[in-house]
Amino acid sequence: MYRLNDWQISDDGLSEDDVLQNGNRLLTGNGYLGRRGVVDEALPSDMPATILSGIYDRHGDLWREPVNSPDPLYTLVSVDEKPLRAGDERTVSHEQALDFRYGIYSRSTSWNINGKKAAVKAQRYAHMEDVNLLCMRYVISSGGQCKINVRQGINREIKDLNGPHLGNFRYIEQSQLKQNDITQRIKGLSCETLEKKIPLSVFSALVNDKMQYIKEEKISNSDDGIFSCLTFDIVNDTEIELIIYGAINTEKECVKAAEEQIKKSLNEGWENLLKRHKAKWDKIWNTGDVVIEGDEYAQRCIRYSLYHLWIIAPRYTENGNGRALSIPARGLSGQTYKGAIFWDTEMFIAPYFRSVRPQMASQFIRYRIQTLEGAKKKAVEYGFRGAFFAWESQESGDDACSDFNVTDVFTGRPVRTYFRDKQIHISADIVYSIQEYVSHTGDTSILIEGGMELILEAARFFLSYLYYSPEHKRYEVLDVIGPDEYHERVNNNAFTNRVVLAVFEIARSYIEMFQKENPLFINDLIKRISFNDDLEFMKTVIDKFYLPQPDSRGIIEQFDGYFRHEDCSIETVRSRLKDPKEYWGCSGGVATPTQIIKQADVVTMLALFGGDYPAEIKKANLDYYEKRTEHGSSLSACMYALLYCETGSSDKAYPFFIKSAEIDITGKSKHFAGLVYIGGTHPAANGGAWLTAIHGFCGFSVCNGEIKIKPRLPSLWNKVKFTCLMRGEEFEITVTKDNYSICKKQ
Amino acid sequence: MYRLNDWQISDDGLSEDDVLQNGNRLLTGNGYLGRRGVVDEALPSDMPATILSGIYDRHGDLWREPVNSPDPLYTLVSVDEKPLRAGDERTVSHEQALDFRYGIYSRSTSWNINGKKAAVKAQRYAHMEDVNLLCMRYVISSGGQCKINVRQGINREIKDLNGPHLGNFRYIEQSQLKQNDITQRIKGLSCETLEKKIPLSVFSALVNDKMQYIKEEKISNSDDGIFSCLTFDIVNDTEIELIIYGAINTEKECVKAAEEQIKKSLNEGWENLLKRHKAKWDKIWNTGDVVIEGDEYAQRCIRYSLYHLWIIAPRYTENGNGRALSIPARGLSGQTYKGAIFWDTEMFIAPYFRSVRPQMASQFIRYRIQTLEGAKKKAVEYGFRGAFFAWESQESGDDACSDFNVTDVFTGRPVRTYFRDKQIHISADIVYSIQEYVSHTGDTSILIEGGMELILEAARFFLSYLYYSPEHKRYEVLDVIGPDEYHERVNNNAFTNRVVLAVFEIARSYIEMFQKENPLFINDLIKRISFNDDLEFMKTVIDKFYLPQPDSRGIIEQFDGYFRHEDCSIETVRSRLKDPKEYWGCSGGVATPTQIIKQADVVTMLALFGGDYPAEIKKANLDYYEKRTEHGSSLSACMYALLYCETGSSDKAYPFFIKSAEIDITGKSKHFAGLVYIGGTHPAANGGAWLTAIHGFCGFSVCNGEIKIKPRLPSLWNKVKFTCLMRGEEFEITVTKDNYSICKKQ
Repeated sequence: MYRLNDWQISDDGLSEDDVLQNGNRLLTGNGYLGRRGVVDEALPSDMPATILSGIYDRHGDLWREPVNSPDPLYTLVSVDEKPLRAGDERTVSHEQALDFRYGIYSRSTSWNINGKKAAVKAQRYAHMEDVNLLCMRYVISSGGQCKINVRQGINREIKDLNGPHLGNFRYIEQSQLKQNDITQRIKGLSCETLEKKIPLSVFSALVNDKMQYIKEEKISNSDDGIFSCLTFDIVNDTEIELIIYGAINTEKECVKAAEEQIKKSLNEGWENLLKRHKAKWDKIWNTGDVVIEGDEYAQRCIRYSLYHLWIIAPRYTENGNGRALSIPARGLSGQTYKGAIFWDTEMFIAPYFRSVRPQMASQFIRYRIQTLEGAKKKAVEYGFRGAFFAWESQESGDDACSDFNVTDVFTGRPVRTYFRDKQIHISADIVYSIQEYVSHTGDTSILIEGGMELILEAARFFLSYLYYSPEHKRYEVLDVIGPDEYHERVNNNAFTNRVVLAVFEIARSYIEMFQKENPLFINDLIKRISFNDDLEFMKTVIDKFYLPQPDSRGIIEQFDGYFRHEDCSIETVRSRLKDPKEYWGCSGGVATPTQIIKQADVVTMLALFGGDYPAEIKKANLDYYEKRTEHGSSLSACMYALLYCETGSSDKAYPFFIKSAEIDITGKSKHFAGLVYIGGTHPAANGGAWLTAIHGFCGFSVCNGEIKIKPRLPSLWNKVKFTCLMRGEEFEITVTKDNYSICKKQ
Repeated sequence: MYRLNDWQISDDGLSEDDVLQNGNRLLTGNGYLGRRGVVDEALPSDMPATILSGIYDRHGDLWREPVNSPDPLYTLVSVDEKPLRAGDERTVSHEQALDFRYGIYSRSTSWNINGKKAAVKAQRYAHMEDVNLLCMRYVISSGGQCKINVRQGINREIKDLNGPHLGNFRYIEQSQLKQNDITQRIKGLSCETLEKKIPLSVFSALVNDKMQYIKEEKISNSDDGIFSCLTFDIVNDTEIELIIYGAINTEKECVKAAEEQIKKSLNEGWENLLKRHKAKWDKIWNTGDVVIEGDEYAQRCIRYSLYHLWIIAPRYTENGNGRALSIPARGLSGQTYKGAIFWDTEMFIAPYFRSVRPQMASQFIRYRIQTLEGAKKKAVEYGFRGAFFAWESQESGDDACSDFNVTDVFTGRPVRTYFRDKQIHISADIVYSIQEYVSHTGDTSILIEGGMELILEAARFFLSYLYYSPEHKRYEVLDVIGPDEYHERVNNNAFTNRVVLAVFEIARSYIEMFQKENPLFINDLIKRISFNDDLEFMKTVIDKFYLPQPDSRGIIEQFDGYFRHEDCSIETVRSRLKDPKEYWGCSGGVATPTQIIKQADVVTMLALFGGDYPAEIKKANLDYYEKRTEHGSSLSACMYALLYCETGSSDKAYPFFIKSAEIDITGKSKHFAGLVYIGGTHPAANGGAWLTAIHGFCGFSVCNGEIKIKPRLPSLWNKVKFTCLMRGEEFEITVTKDNYSICKKQ
């Protein structure tokens, strides 16, 4: 069972399910790599993974997915020839923990070997400054005389969901360097990805100062990796401390770079490395923390959530003009969801970074700008113009989403899903997010450097997508999937129509702005991309665009004909399941013919465009849709929370906030869509927790450089303190039940 | 195994499957009622049925379906207290046969009872002139001394698919009438349908002149019906002949009418009744027959097919101004497909009757005119205007089609299908059929008497349904199901778009015609139904309407994006089935994500609108689509046959002709869609066989009163002879390989 303390979460579980959950729960990372919280001797079935951000590969014709690196920290101890694995029949005690202030994973396990006690305590972290570096301190203790074998090195025995992805392996053995009686054993491995031949180099160094016990040492290498094999003869109770460094590099000269990283680290040493690492985290929390008074559990949850955002945020590509990265829907917690970037980043994660690290939010936009060509290609593929962004975006903007995204549990057959074809709102979400960024930061340079072109191409896409209904004398958006994916291929989804209109409005307003401030730029752009006719048409469309309106009860129909669907309870729908892993949506799903929806849809629209609607409309829709929402997506709860806050019901919002904030703590979320594993961490919910705390409970918003606060804390909370960076200045904001202060930090 | 001879088909099978198949194969009927070809002592599990045309009922919230009458011909014989049933363990021989020249079913069964032989020979028919009457001659023979019990009467033990449908039963016992030593026992029953309280009366009379053997007689009635129970003491080899009349009536005064029918029949007697019955058939064949020389099998098949059309054609409502009826997709062979009328009648059955009995074709149109209000209601239900005809039409034009038309074989759950919502081509098929009727008969009175209003309302429906694509500057028809039902909710289905355009063109051309010939009528109609604005808009639409065009290979894409679907073989798709009863289409169906289609779709379009396209386009599409067509519908083969004939490949058409013509002979067709039983006879294929023989092989067509013949007989055929009634004149047409003659009959 897990325990959550201040800045720490721990778990002593050993079941198969515990191992899978803790892999996510105790994840460490630094934006370059993510390392699952599994023990150092993990077997492939424990799903160990060291996921590399932004590196993807395809094996055969299986789904493209992020590359899982060989593991340089692999360590297996045997006592008297008996290998010790957490959970084996000799295990006496076991606990893993995560210090989420500093991103340090630790494990402590003890075994009983024929009456003798053996124990391992280890700590490891992904270095926050030297992002290619993994550090581990590994202490073996034994009670009495025994022989200890240590097999430590670079393990290739890892499990890919759709792999393997690496080939052309070469091993590198370094001569042992001995300094001051300390042995440093360095092993290296180089290989490349199969599809794109991206070079990958992994180094592992083992430092050990208990030379006196060493009886034998050798390097072994085979198909499963390259390892140091040490044998210690122990006579009394003693401790053997090993320091292990791993370096992973994917640059052009990756062998050299990884080797240099290792040698530099060996020189710097454990203490100094840790000091630099912690300093980096201290700096992060200095801006990034949220302090909640009056609710210890919420305090711990929100910090845990923010931790998860920081370990996957690609700081190392943040500045400079090179390749920009973004954040996958399951972070760096594994290969789930193809390591792809969804709308999660723009709508749920970007708001936090916009406030505390604008250059990160800017990077997310640059990532989309860099994938604009992919989006244009996708539009052409479907017979449209402009930019139709990938629903599941990887490095090139090509869509990683397959036509068959779910596996039928009864037949084992892939099921045709329309996420790729019809979830067109993704292009609008990106535009919306750019506008929010510009409004917060005032940084219009991003518009000039590709953002404006992206916006116009997105507008062009929607102009080529929409239809005119002569019957209703209006422009409509047909055949889409809204946020609620249980209902595919619907017409006039209220959310989608609203964000599409927003694209047109944003495009028009920026054009007007630039025509005043930088006519040369905008006129040149419009000419270069031949947007003039589209612009004229766009103005016509804005005037006759269809937004589904509230009915006599104040309820906005989610899409045309939604009210015709069977109106039954979630329990009724659930009772119709014949298999717990059944996907509720798409073809034949139990929810599809009913009004039961996967996640906030109209409610998301109202949360984003609250200004357009009076409170009673929001209330009516909250009331109607809440009982019909299954919350099968981690994106759902925070939109309910936000809208409840907006309608003055913070206490109704509170359980939704908790649901978002604790999702990766409890591990309670859907692990399967059909037969496809979708487990992992939930960055969008992590971001959603912040959104609820700050935008929701504190009523924080920024509009054109002006900070607004409207306190509406839930009952338990007395005070919230957080930081907002805006236009080069740093503000410390304190919100109490009835008051607030915004202080410029010095 | 069945045997097909001249004018006769017989079968000696006794398995469960044989019994089900023969129920259809040996069907008799007269347009008022259809009686399945089961033995007289059939158990409910044998699916006995006497289906009443145009009478529907709903039980609870199950599907509405035609009413199955209690059976007045039920006869069960017991010898020495042992009931004799065909197929029981004592059965020695069994054969059933159908004389399809005169619609007479016969059966002959013998049993071995402890070494003694007992046999039953029976003949029965549905009277072609007195349509409320069923006649049966039933002969029992026994070898040696025995006791024979006969239980004969009105049996209520029938199996409904979604029943029961009758209630408020009352039994009527008539005093025995004795004339000339002949006993006539009359039983009656009255009841009413549950939903609409339609009165139903059934009478049964038993005539027996072997008084000498009768030992005992009584009337028994209970929940299973009312019966005469006769006991005969037989001493030697002898035969007992029973004549049985059944009368079924659903008029207001049905008890009186049924009783009168029975008494009249008793007076008239077996021989005279049979004579009148046969005379009626002789008259029918005099016009309706098709004579094929050179191909005995084809000759037998086509006559068998035409027989099936005549036994379900509602002649009794043909004339007069009362209620008009049409032909259900499974004729009167059972309750399958809800006894509903689909596009089958208009597109596949009407052509035959148009040529040989125009008043029947006219009745089909009147049926649609009478259901126009239902069609207008359906349009409103879906948010459109005009006439959206029922996909599955029953008496009122309300749509009997449910939102869940298929049952998933794996979960047992109903599957959402879109036949009702999206198969909009039905409204266009009706208009197309009206135009064909008018062109053949010159009868424009049908237009004045509601036909024109129907056409304009259908046009209005499509005008309210279509969208304008600003991107492509054209009007499109989105979100439909074409003839190929395996692909639901597609855009710009080539067939649908073509027939929708035809509606506009037909509407426009009739308006122009009437504006010359009867401006008062048309102007008044346009004004009365406020069609002026629609008319103006319709003209605009015709000019900018999108018809999918052949690509560089000459192939017309079935719908937008069809070519993106997996291109694999029918065998590949079939191999993916996990259950033989799986429905191939809709959600999760094996065909849905592929290019495998259920039935002719583009090919149907090309067969109907051949004049629009050159031969090479037709050939290219035949070639492309044939290998991708599963022919999961009985409507498919004849469209291929027609198009092959048109492209000069009659020998390629021939197997398709045979497939259509023998469908109810072989019984080889789909019996299940998901878990829903869809077996029965196939009137559309019966009509399709005629279409192929006459329109296809003989190249027969009628355009504005002019008969055209273009001989293209298949290799085997030397000569075809058939009749065409046109504009009050009767033509005998003879077609040989290279020649033809059209002679006016005197």
